Amino acid sequence: MDLQKINEFAIKLIYDAGEQIRESFSKELIIETKTDANDLVTNIDCQIEQFFVKKIKELDPSHKIMGEEGLGDKIVTLDGPIWIIDPIDGTMNFIKQHRNFMITVGFFVDGVGKLGYLYDVMRNELIYAIRGEGAYIDHHPIRKLEPLTIEEAIIGINSSWVIQNGKINHEKIANLIRTVRGTRSYGSAAMEIALVVTGKLDAYLSMRLAPWDIGGGMVIAQEVGAVATNLKGEPFNLLSNDTFLIANPSIHQKLLDEFIELK
Amino acid sequence: MDLQKINEFAIKLIYDAGEQIRESFSKELIIETKTDANDLVTNIDCQIEQFFVKKIKELDPSHKIMGEEGLGDKIVTLDGPIWIIDPIDGTMNFIKQHRNFMITVGFFVDGVGKLGYLYDVMRNELIYAIRGEGAYIDHHPIRKLEPLTIEEAIIGINSSWVIQNGKINHEKIANLIRTVRGTRSYGSAAMEIALVVTGKLDAYLSMRLAPWDIGGGMVIAQEVGAVATNLKGEPFNLLSNDTFLIANPSIHQKLLDEFIELK
Repeated sequence: MDLQKINEFAIKLIYDAGEQIRESFSKELIIETKTDANDLVTNIDCQIEQFFVKKIKELDPSHKIMGEEGLGDKIVTLDGPIWIIDPIDGTMNFIKQHRNFMITVGFFVDGVGKLGYLYDVMRNELIYAIRGEGAYIDHHPIRKLEPLTIEEAIIGINSSWVIQNGKINHEKIANLIRTVRGTRSYGSAAMEIALVVTGKLDAYLSMRLAPWDIGGGMVIAQEVGAVATNLKGEPFNLLSNDTFLIANPSIHQKLLDEFIELK
Repeated sequence: MDLQKINEFAIKLIYDAGEQIRESFSKELIIETKTDANDLVTNIDCQIEQFFVKKIKELDPSHKIMGEEGLGDKIVTLDGPIWIIDPIDGTMNFIKQHRNFMITVGFFVDGVGKLGYLYDVMRNELIYAIRGEGAYIDHHPIRKLEPLTIEEAIIGINSSWVIQNGKINHEKIANLIRTVRGTRSYGSAAMEIALVVTGKLDAYLSMRLAPWDIGGGMVIAQEVGAVATNLKGEPFNLLSNDTFLIANPSIHQKLLDEFIELK
């Protein structure tokens, strides 16, 4: 399998998709509600995922596709080559802000991440990685993350996990917030992961993400030295939803040990 | 006083300052700590404020200047023409992310906001308003905000006010977070205000802001119909720090009545 060639294919696909999304802002959006009001879907999500599915199947019909909109394949095993795609991560931002959303794509073979992409459509900023060959931002190499202390860290966390909730001990999260230098919340997991792998945030955690939220980011994380696991410190389960923590390697274990207590 | 002429002067000044800041990323930053680790200052903050002071005094030496770095005048009254300036709002983002910080400027005469500016330096996106003549984003008119319900709202709030704290009843804030569609936190008051006045967020609140954080935004808020007060619902005190709420007019009073309880 020629990873360099697949990488070139993926980069072109993502830039093309970004162009389609930017053009869509001049057209009317047809918005329907999915399972709840917090999970909005627009016709452009489906259009972009359909575009990825079509092009990937043209490249190689044996490649399987797992996408947020469910237009690809039904994935029950990680065997073989699988694309994991979120055509628009941060749909609410997409609709309301016309910014702060991402295209994210991961390419896995037998469960091992080979290629990863995080594309900030409105900034036209592409982060990508090839397993074992480093990570790049707009084609410039990204440096390995430098160590820091918890007290110096800026952490991405949604306020839903800061108030009392059924998933995590919120008193320990309150201690975390009192300990770190600051927190941020952007409303796009892929964007927060992109900020962590480039050292603009030092960690990001969530109680519930899907494989397509983090697949691309996991490959990039490995190349810059960021540690990405679930909140038990185990590998994220790519066949279901899971908890998630990505962090600078100098604080990942300390975050798990001192501030995370799942219910 | 020719406000149109002062507006043209201010826009040129802000674009020039933005250019200096973007250039500074290629130079080394000398960072010193101010009163605490959360309030970082760099040499560029001072350089930009000095630039504003020099140019404004050249325009009219009778104009007074209130700036975050304290290089302007000592302001004890709001009489006469006063510029209220934050050369870099979101200093931590400036240092760590090289994005998500703003230049913000307000021009007041006898305490009345006449001109307001919010400039996203890295996006090169300028929002400004002239009192009574509307607000503009990159020179296109900004529409008045459209009504919405609390349940549809996205709110900017820092996690420090979500955990138990000495300033506000955090249980009511938890109720707010359970009620709204989502929350965000960007680490720059001026950026969150910019998002509210353009309808990309529906409210932003803070327990403690300075006049230079919000001066420019207040003028713009009035032109788009956003309501900006302190958390008692009174006008923000421009001669000291104060609490702050800016919101879509359809939810401002409800936020104060049902979700805000100062200690």
